[in-house]
Amino acid sequence: MEHLRQLTRRIVNRININLRGPKVDCGPYALELIPEEKFAQFYAFYGLSPDLPLHLKFKNSCLAGSYLLGRCTVEHSLIYKTDIRGDEFKRKGTHFDYEGLSIPLHHDEKVVIKDSFLIKTLVHNFSHDPENLEEFVIKNTLSLHHANIHGAPMEGAFLGPFATVDLTSLHDCVIGTFAYVQVGELSHQWIEPGMVWVRSEGSFDFRYRFPLEPLKKYIDMKPNERPTGMLFDFVESKKQEFESIYSRVQNQPPFSTKGASVSPYAVVKPKTLIGENVLVAQRAYVENSSLGRGSNAQENCYIIDSTLDGNNVTAHGGKIINSTLGQNVFVGFNAFVHGKPNAIITIGKDSIIMPHAVIDAQEPVTIPENTLVWGLVTCQKDLELNSVSLDKLAQVDGKWEQGSMVFQGHGKAFVEAFKHRITHILEANGAFFDGKDMGGHAQKGQDISFNIIQPYAEGPFRGMYPTMDIRHLVD
Amino acid sequence: MEHLRQLTRRIVNRININLRGPKVDCGPYALELIPEEKFAQFYAFYGLSPDLPLHLKFKNSCLAGSYLLGRCTVEHSLIYKTDIRGDEFKRKGTHFDYEGLSIPLHHDEKVVIKDSFLIKTLVHNFSHDPENLEEFVIKNTLSLHHANIHGAPMEGAFLGPFATVDLTSLHDCVIGTFAYVQVGELSHQWIEPGMVWVRSEGSFDFRYRFPLEPLKKYIDMKPNERPTGMLFDFVESKKQEFESIYSRVQNQPPFSTKGASVSPYAVVKPKTLIGENVLVAQRAYVENSSLGRGSNAQENCYIIDSTLDGNNVTAHGGKIINSTLGQNVFVGFNAFVHGKPNAIITIGKDSIIMPHAVIDAQEPVTIPENTLVWGLVTCQKDLELNSVSLDKLAQVDGKWEQGSMVFQGHGKAFVEAFKHRITHILEANGAFFDGKDMGGHAQKGQDISFNIIQPYAEGPFRGMYPTMDIRHLVD
Repeated sequence: MEHLRQLTRRIVNRININLRGPKVDCGPYALELIPEEKFAQFYAFYGLSPDLPLHLKFKNSCLAGSYLLGRCTVEHSLIYKTDIRGDEFKRKGTHFDYEGLSIPLHHDEKVVIKDSFLIKTLVHNFSHDPENLEEFVIKNTLSLHHANIHGAPMEGAFLGPFATVDLTSLHDCVIGTFAYVQVGELSHQWIEPGMVWVRSEGSFDFRYRFPLEPLKKYIDMKPNERPTGMLFDFVESKKQEFESIYSRVQNQPPFSTKGASVSPYAVVKPKTLIGENVLVAQRAYVENSSLGRGSNAQENCYIIDSTLDGNNVTAHGGKIINSTLGQNVFVGFNAFVHGKPNAIITIGKDSIIMPHAVIDAQEPVTIPENTLVWGLVTCQKDLELNSVSLDKLAQVDGKWEQGSMVFQGHGKAFVEAFKHRITHILEANGAFFDGKDMGGHAQKGQDISFNIIQPYAEGPFRGMYPTMDIRHLVD
Repeated sequence: MEHLRQLTRRIVNRININLRGPKVDCGPYALELIPEEKFAQFYAFYGLSPDLPLHLKFKNSCLAGSYLLGRCTVEHSLIYKTDIRGDEFKRKGTHFDYEGLSIPLHHDEKVVIKDSFLIKTLVHNFSHDPENLEEFVIKNTLSLHHANIHGAPMEGAFLGPFATVDLTSLHDCVIGTFAYVQVGELSHQWIEPGMVWVRSEGSFDFRYRFPLEPLKKYIDMKPNERPTGMLFDFVESKKQEFESIYSRVQNQPPFSTKGASVSPYAVVKPKTLIGENVLVAQRAYVENSSLGRGSNAQENCYIIDSTLDGNNVTAHGGKIINSTLGQNVFVGFNAFVHGKPNAIITIGKDSIIMPHAVIDAQEPVTIPENTLVWGLVTCQKDLELNSVSLDKLAQVDGKWEQGSMVFQGHGKAFVEAFKHRITHILEANGAFFDGKDMGGHAQKGQDISFNIIQPYAEGPFRGMYPTMDIRHLVD
């Protein structure tokens, strides 16, 4: 595996050059993090669908355990158990609107991953960089376990485990463990672990910093070590359940509810009810739960011993255990809604659990309807500082602090932006499909066929993949 | 599946143009032969090995259920459950010797399949056309079930079911059902069903014509119908056994005998013994049998309730049932050695069962050692007309007839050519591997990883495959 080893070192050096400003050495977080054997052990796969653009180009890369869909170029990179989901990329002929300008696209958007190392990362949504409409670039970037790169091109970035970069272009930035940013653009910044930051320039700014010591209980990472903490352990404990799925060529989805789609690469355990127009994405895990009409469980979600009433969004990496959710409840990226049999979490309809919120109930916790929840909540009382009624928030104009949360700007704009986005996600996933119109991923996902690609099993290129160019028959 | 239907018709028309001399319409043998649904049902797969050249180019083709290895270009073609085994193609830098000339190869040989329709065909060995050293061309060709294209480039050819073209270039030829030719070159000829013809220009000529009515009992094909007969039924009856193998991503070979290799895509049923240096190729089937040291079971072989003493070659498509074979027995292409529990076939050491021989024993049949057997044998007495001692044959010089067999030329040259070829096959397959040197397919095959490619599942391209270009990382 000499070649793979050299490639890893080369990527680390390139990233370190980009991050020489803040003097970051990402080597201890990348080199020897994954036992070399693992790179040769897992196959990669890609989806083929007549409804989606297709152009895959792989060169001098390792794709172990990764899934690719759409138009993706991967060069001089390691992508390990990573999903590149190109089904929401911008399409040729559509227009990108930016500050009153409307620019038509020359060609279908593609993601270009160069000189990067992505570990168990989800790359999804289209690039929101108005300067590069057709190319979603990820370059000189290291992203660690269960990070989300969501519509976020980046050059010279280091994302800690469970970090999420959402609709934000990054240039030479470090995004700490379990940090979440949705701020449009960032250059030469170091975002601390556990920071949650949502900003719309000139409109609002929401910031919350997770208390550092408690955060370590949930997720932490030291140089030269694997991540630790309850979040990481939880995900690791379910890993084996996926293995039997990946050992078969074609999996039959276990459900055939009208308008619903359960990925053949999802784990669905007994006593699960799937309503109409439900989407269960690949790498999602559902057990002993009821997913009401129009709900979706996105990649890396875990829904266990829970009831979701309907039109519930569980965003990428969201985890819901021993909980009861009313209609239209939104659970954000990597949120951990962790009830127990004797400490059920009940969430009223239309509520929003912020990305990277942790509700680790030590007693029954009830969240009223139409409520925004963030940060760390372990008991009912914690909600006093970590939640607000959306109606109340909508009335905020100016600066408003509560606990370690600081809000500035127009509360109404914040609430409306969130509501709008939730509706858009439901739409895109096909929640409102009426049997004819309003179809989304839940309906389209059924036509994807899965292709399996293997690395070199022996020799100096062991773990690396051949050079490939795969495109539609007529293109 | 409009596209696939148009493509089939286009291929048929092209072949018919090539075969307008003998006025052949291959349409009734190709159109609607395979239910359309089947083309979309089976995935294709290809092998990746650091030891073998790799360059796969697929364009406007259907590859359903096919396996590809090495350097293969497939354009505007349908290849259905067909194996393109490029592991014996000529390599860059090696020399091709022809009538005293020694020509070095510019680049690794590749097979180019254009405007052709191959059904359950095996393409193997390197091209023996001295005019095209680097390209093994198969163009405007239809080949039907269980045909073998062995080192035999062809343009404008129609091969009937179970036909074998061995080391012979074809131009505008029809090779009838169950015919076998190994004659160097053929142009504008129509080879009758059941013809077995081995010729070495200026040295010898062996011809045998299978009696037509009995042949139909074993294999026959009428226009607009599927093949019929015992050979076809036998193969069909084992089809299901392969299905579970193809539903898993990685199969573990069931044996780990020293120096031996059992393909993960072979079926090996209980009570089978695998000796050292044995090769069981993919799509081979072995049940309740013993394969002695250095034996090989090539593609589409079936070895059932039999004992092979060692260094036995069972060539592509050979079938051995209820039989006992001494050391070094060779069973040729598509030969059918069909013993029964009360009619065991015993074959003495060093004997040669000619390609396309049928020994369908109605009583116990014993073949002495060092014997050549051809044609149709159903009882001990049939051997009088259908066999000869190799020593006796080696003394023939001139014309010699026996039954419907006509031999002309030097018997010694014929016997020596055959013996030389058998030794070469054993060598190439690794029968003589001593733990260090003399390795062959049995030893190399272990490093191949298998990749799975799927057709379009929906839409007008249903059953067709995307455009692909796959090559080694460094090439």
